[in-house]
Amino acid sequence: MMDENNLSSVEKTVRLQGHLVDSDIMSSVLDRIVSLEGKFRFEQFDIGRTNIDPSVTTLTVFARDNAHMDQIMGELTQLGAFVEDENVLVERAPADCVVPERFYSTTNHRTAIKMEGTWIEVERQMMDSVIVVSPDFKKASCRKLRYVKKDDCVVVGTRGIHVMPMEKSRKRSVFDFMNSMVSSERNITVFVRQAATIMREAKSSGGRICVVPGPAVIHTGGSVHLASLIRKGYVDGLLSGNALAVHDVETMLFGTSLGVSLESGKSVEGGHRHHMAAINYINTYGGLRGLFEKGLLTSGIFFECLKNDVPYALAGSIRDDGPIPDVITDMRTAQERYIELLEDVDLVLMLASMLHSIAVGNVLPSYVRTICVDINPAAVTKLVDRGSFQAFGIVTDVSLFLRVLDLLL
Amino acid sequence: MMDENNLSSVEKTVRLQGHLVDSDIMSSVLDRIVSLEGKFRFEQFDIGRTNIDPSVTTLTVFARDNAHMDQIMGELTQLGAFVEDENVLVERAPADCVVPERFYSTTNHRTAIKMEGTWIEVERQMMDSVIVVSPDFKKASCRKLRYVKKDDCVVVGTRGIHVMPMEKSRKRSVFDFMNSMVSSERNITVFVRQAATIMREAKSSGGRICVVPGPAVIHTGGSVHLASLIRKGYVDGLLSGNALAVHDVETMLFGTSLGVSLESGKSVEGGHRHHMAAINYINTYGGLRGLFEKGLLTSGIFFECLKNDVPYALAGSIRDDGPIPDVITDMRTAQERYIELLEDVDLVLMLASMLHSIAVGNVLPSYVRTICVDINPAAVTKLVDRGSFQAFGIVTDVSLFLRVLDLLL
Amino acid sequence: MMDENNLSSVEKTVRLQGHLVDSDIMSSVLDRIVSLEGKFRFEQFDIGRTNIDPSVTTLTVFARDNAHMDQIMGELTQLGAFVEDENVLVERAPADCVVPERFYSTTNHRTAIKMEGTWIEVERQMMDSVIVVSPDFKKASCRKLRYVKKDDCVVVGTRGIHVMPMEKSRKRSVFDFMNSMVSSERNITVFVRQAATIMREAKSSGGRICVVPGPAVIHTGGSVHLASLIRKGYVDGLLSGNALAVHDVETMLFGTSLGVSLESGKSVEGGHRHHMAAINYINTYGGLRGLFEKGLLTSGIFFECLKNDVPYALAGSIRDDGPIPDVITDMRTAQERYIELLEDVDLVLMLASMLHSIAVGNVLPSYVRTICVDINPAAVTKLVDRGSFQAFGIVTDVSLFLRVLDLLL
Amino acid sequence: MMDENNLSSVEKTVRLQGHLVDSDIMSSVLDRIVSLEGKFRFEQFDIGRTNIDPSVTTLTVFARDNAHMDQIMGELTQLGAFVEDENVLVERAPADCVVPERFYSTTNHRTAIKMEGTWIEVERQMMDSVIVVSPDFKKASCRKLRYVKKDDCVVVGTRGIHVMPMEKSRKRSVFDFMNSMVSSERNITVFVRQAATIMREAKSSGGRICVVPGPAVIHTGGSVHLASLIRKGYVDGLLSGNALAVHDVETMLFGTSLGVSLESGKSVEGGHRHHMAAINYINTYGGLRGLFEKGLLTSGIFFECLKNDVPYALAGSIRDDGPIPDVITDMRTAQERYIELLEDVDLVLMLASMLHSIAVGNVLPSYVRTICVDINPAAVTKLVDRGSFQAFGIVTDVSLFLRVLDLLL
Repeated sequence: MMDENNLSSVEKTVRLQGHLVDSDIMSSVLDRIVSLEGKFRFEQFDIGRTNIDPSVTTLTVFARDNAHMDQIMGELTQLGAFVEDENVLVERAPADCVVPERFYSTTNHRTAIKMEGTWIEVERQMMDSVIVVSPDFKKASCRKLRYVKKDDCVVVGTRGIHVMPMEKSRKRSVFDFMNSMVSSERNITVFVRQAATIMREAKSSGGRICVVPGPAVIHTGGSVHLASLIRKGYVDGLLSGNALAVHDVETMLFGTSLGVSLESGKSVEGGHRHHMAAINYINTYGGLRGLFEKGLLTSGIFFECLKNDVPYALAGSIRDDGPIPDVITDMRTAQERYIELLEDVDLVLMLASMLHSIAVGNVLPSYVRTICVDINPAAVTKLVDRGSFQAFGIVTDVSLFLRVLDLLL
Repeated sequence: MMDENNLSSVEKTVRLQGHLVDSDIMSSVLDRIVSLEGKFRFEQFDIGRTNIDPSVTTLTVFARDNAHMDQIMGELTQLGAFVEDENVLVERAPADCVVPERFYSTTNHRTAIKMEGTWIEVERQMMDSVIVVSPDFKKASCRKLRYVKKDDCVVVGTRGIHVMPMEKSRKRSVFDFMNSMVSSERNITVFVRQAATIMREAKSSGGRICVVPGPAVIHTGGSVHLASLIRKGYVDGLLSGNALAVHDVETMLFGTSLGVSLESGKSVEGGHRHHMAAINYINTYGGLRGLFEKGLLTSGIFFECLKNDVPYALAGSIRDDGPIPDVITDMRTAQERYIELLEDVDLVLMLASMLHSIAVGNVLPSYVRTICVDINPAAVTKLVDRGSFQAFGIVTDVSLFLRVLDLLL
Repeated sequence: MMDENNLSSVEKTVRLQGHLVDSDIMSSVLDRIVSLEGKFRFEQFDIGRTNIDPSVTTLTVFARDNAHMDQIMGELTQLGAFVEDENVLVERAPADCVVPERFYSTTNHRTAIKMEGTWIEVERQMMDSVIVVSPDFKKASCRKLRYVKKDDCVVVGTRGIHVMPMEKSRKRSVFDFMNSMVSSERNITVFVRQAATIMREAKSSGGRICVVPGPAVIHTGGSVHLASLIRKGYVDGLLSGNALAVHDVETMLFGTSLGVSLESGKSVEGGHRHHMAAINYINTYGGLRGLFEKGLLTSGIFFECLKNDVPYALAGSIRDDGPIPDVITDMRTAQERYIELLEDVDLVLMLASMLHSIAVGNVLPSYVRTICVDINPAAVTKLVDRGSFQAFGIVTDVSLFLRVLDLLL
Repeated sequence: MMDENNLSSVEKTVRLQGHLVDSDIMSSVLDRIVSLEGKFRFEQFDIGRTNIDPSVTTLTVFARDNAHMDQIMGELTQLGAFVEDENVLVERAPADCVVPERFYSTTNHRTAIKMEGTWIEVERQMMDSVIVVSPDFKKASCRKLRYVKKDDCVVVGTRGIHVMPMEKSRKRSVFDFMNSMVSSERNITVFVRQAATIMREAKSSGGRICVVPGPAVIHTGGSVHLASLIRKGYVDGLLSGNALAVHDVETMLFGTSLGVSLESGKSVEGGHRHHMAAINYINTYGGLRGLFEKGLLTSGIFFECLKNDVPYALAGSIRDDGPIPDVITDMRTAQERYIELLEDVDLVLMLASMLHSIAVGNVLPSYVRTICVDINPAAVTKLVDRGSFQAFGIVTDVSLFLRVLDLLL
């Protein structure tokens, strides 16, 4: 089916380095070549002899023609293969929000590009972006399409690009141990203990922790524990939406969440009136900060945020009731604000919030550790499946997770 | 535990009418009174003697005090109980987006209010709103909090309000038959046939049909069938978000959806590049309409919308890549546009789209029929659980649903 | 479409009594008549005037012909409608395990039959059975098809049968309040508190409690709490299968469950060896009782059962490893043993065990209260959907449920 | 934390061969050593230079002590590592169903053992078994604990055992391509086409195909298509339980499945009476074969099985109604019958049947290809997660799968 002669017509020698074997990188590389009907030959394979030494390999890839090679190289580049002596290619953006057709689309892995013979690390790494090079060719940065300006220098093709996928370290840290998803059929408290250790370590080394809580945090009675974590200094930024804030104030005012008593579990009054009354109350004082400054916000997640100067970003959505004045209703602005809050973050806790967690995942580099908690296994799978060893999912009741975490921290 | 004397201290006689017994309305009313620790006495109970006759009942409700009675009446009003000779109470909104504290929070059921002795039907019925009365007290309309202006006359309390919950008619239509959720353990094609009948009936009686499709419609290969339904005239409005449009154009350009070939099921190329290229292509021409007018949009859902003058609204979200120029990024504007498109709609098809379907459900009256299709039972449950006999859910692969529906229409 | 004349050709007057309106019974009756294209006329409708009084109604049902009437009466009988002056009909079983073609198929509701003018309550009520009448026509009892003997007197048709569906009482008990399913989006601890109250009440009134635990009880670390409940006297019978016992012993021997450490959450050793070693260990001593008598069973669920004389039944299944000697491998024998253990039970806790819980549900009368706990909402829905007000489902981590329950009892 | 000196105290040199790199075997081996706190040094690593050449490696493993080495070797043996010059160790079974404490617990991968210097392949490979050696040391076979007899020679320890895990071939077959699970967000028909190709290939090369259908096959209207596949000769054995047979006959008799019309989707009559009547009908004629021989079984899955001499095994379960005479109610006998029917099978289709599919998976070698179809993603994950490249899962409506498959075959 494959014609050897054709395949020998184009070849390219690429290099890979790191813990290739035990990080599944090598198996992914070979898998991709074979899947795309390319061929390969090992030129060199220096496997690390012990746990500590990295491996280095060079590999010649054979393709039918240049287009076929480009397709294969598109894949291999993303897995970390690179050619030693090529400089990156750039072209100018033809218009605002428009990039050259052959633009290089980024991964969320740490990436370097070779400009005028020098490897330079790309800043603000995030996936599904382009790389924009500074006019002096000294710096490069990921940029979402919406922020590209006419005449920006945009990286194209796959030359001169070195992607560095996360590797498992052979000396295991707690986080490496936790790298798979924890099913609901495990003893969850064990894993909460691990999460507590990671958080303590992150804070003791001066790291930033962001949380992305969904409304279920409040419905399930977890908000007192999240508030407690904020008070104890474990939260440096909070990213969520309108509902979380409204439920938080409803709980303070009425002890209910969407009309359901957190104390008795009973529906206290027909449907949503408390919910609407909470919005009305917040609107009356011009928003959460207005309430806080008047001394009317006295407990809950946002009380602790405002009291402890923890910044938050509330992004609007098409399904919002209200929204309250604190919500950023323009999505471009909201996305910018999310990116700002996530700058230099070291650990992200995604707590039963699909929509906002996906938004956060879209702009995080793969080396930022994330812990995703949701009772729905499908939600956890979707969130941790980011090609990263740093995402860790736990399928459980979010309030249980927070209760135990709060006890341990 | 309950003190009869206390309870006899406040009483109120309310009226209910309609198919009380077989629509569960009567059982809900009694259930609510007992749950809230109130008491009741039947004064009159004229049950319809045959399938066609409605029932009428009057009921005296006993409460501990006025606050208790208000609480009970808050519930009963929503179930359809009303007092014959009371006029509605109104108060003025103290500020923009702020309503009087005792505001009446609406349901999604048809509602009338009594003003100066006359029952008047409330316009633009939707839930979690307030009722704003026109200055001349001749008209009334539901309004979301965000559109309330200072000094608007807002209905407060529960007096003079007659909610008319949907009833099952005793002479069953096809839709009545389908009023529960269809589990994945049923012969789905039977129910698709029912859906086809409803759609045909809706169109033959001049009704409007809106669809709310999610990205899975495209991933699963259903877009050709949705496009076909648009071409055949079965769609009068389409409400969705950025992803649907981007995947639609990606499919036209590359035959893939998020990089997965719809033909072979294989991942054609690393992750998301096709996705980004589709956004870039759309941006290049200033949006979908730009593409269409240049003759570059030649197939797919949006090609059919533009060719057949079917209006659409794409609401932005915090997780969008892009977004493309056609997306409304401000949520207030997007919500207004959704409400406009849904004006006078007769039937809504929610197709594997949780976020946008919830947004649509938030502004639909209960008497608009909705058919919700999703492979995730939890999503269907959430969407059909709107206290309405008119929501019908089917748990199945959305592309199967569309394929069979397309064959039948 | 329906021909009135035809319909008037057959009619029958039936009686209903109880809390018809607020128990949804009346709405179900009318719904069924209309669904089956019958008609009805109310003859009498004495609705209870207060919370305490029951309602009584007589209703004339019209059908096209006798077969149509039989079809309608088949439904109405199950909902509680009965004709006052008819005796039950019986025919003889033609062979072992074979009943007359027109056999009456039972529900799980309390049922009486009229024999020689006297209403007699049917014993051992369970669904999907037949009613066998004693030779002297003084007693009647439900019997599964497999136990029917040639010449047994089996009830046929629908005459003389009075089914008494569970009604909600208007004066709410804790259990009535809990009659719906608790979703994962609720504060679960509230509901565990209710469960604790029910269990305490059941024991203080001398009731029997059975538990039906699945293997997840052990995987999730819940077994110490279940063992504790047994020790405290809250368990009078345990129904499960092979896996629970094997995991219980594996935990005692190795601190693992299917090779996963309950302490650290790590897979201690490749796959299943511990599991197989536990089976081998049990086999060596001839079963759990052998281990216990040798003093080798020192902790866990079955240690507590054996120490506290709590009877258990372990039913085999086609997927068993082992099975250990304590498992009943013949399904007919296992089903008999299950029925014996459930005799006169007052409360059943179904703990993350689908297969065995369905088996238990198959033989329980509807008036026995059941609490079903599972993290999978679909499993809970399937188990509580037994047409009973006495089944209560909680969607949560079973070990959390047991931990909190153990604290409270 | 780890002491190099201690670790150097015990060492062992093992060999691995095959497509180590692209089959993830090498990464798993290193991962396990590091996880268990062992160390390693590569002695030799001859990587296959092209797609076709296998790799060979020798590796020295360091452990703290002999127990630690045994633990590590327990893992590595299962991944395919073996020591060249060791013979297998055996001990005698001390009693029926009891094996020596250090017994070797099998995987489902092809395995050879070295006896008196010769590698011999183990017969009847299945997981969670022991290996019993023939008295003349010429043959070896997997045996479940329940079939072990006193004095059988049972393999112990990990010496002289060479496990051969499935590898991905570098030249991809259709099945290799399909080795992951297909989510519900894919175009399912593409994958059904692949399944059809595999089935056609299996039959054209004289292979045996077994199916494991669950009751949902009938509820969803898929039975006509399964019957058709049997008629066309695509089924060589059917493994299921009581419910499938009862629903099959109910469908033939009444056009319903658990009382729900397959034609209209309506509940034709109260609950389960049809179900019970079908059991009674089957019992009347002594079982399915009795019905068939009287000419009373005229359509459906079992009609086709009996007409086309396709053997079937129906295993009982604790939740069965009936059961009908064809059901094997003793689980030991049922397990034996399952193993017989699966002898030399080449392809297994698991169709919406969790319980029976797990039972089948328990006794299949990893090199038998399996296709698992279920609408519940959790069920598919559980079934395909057998450490095999030969299990392929599709999340979809089983009747859709069968309908399209039937069209294509």
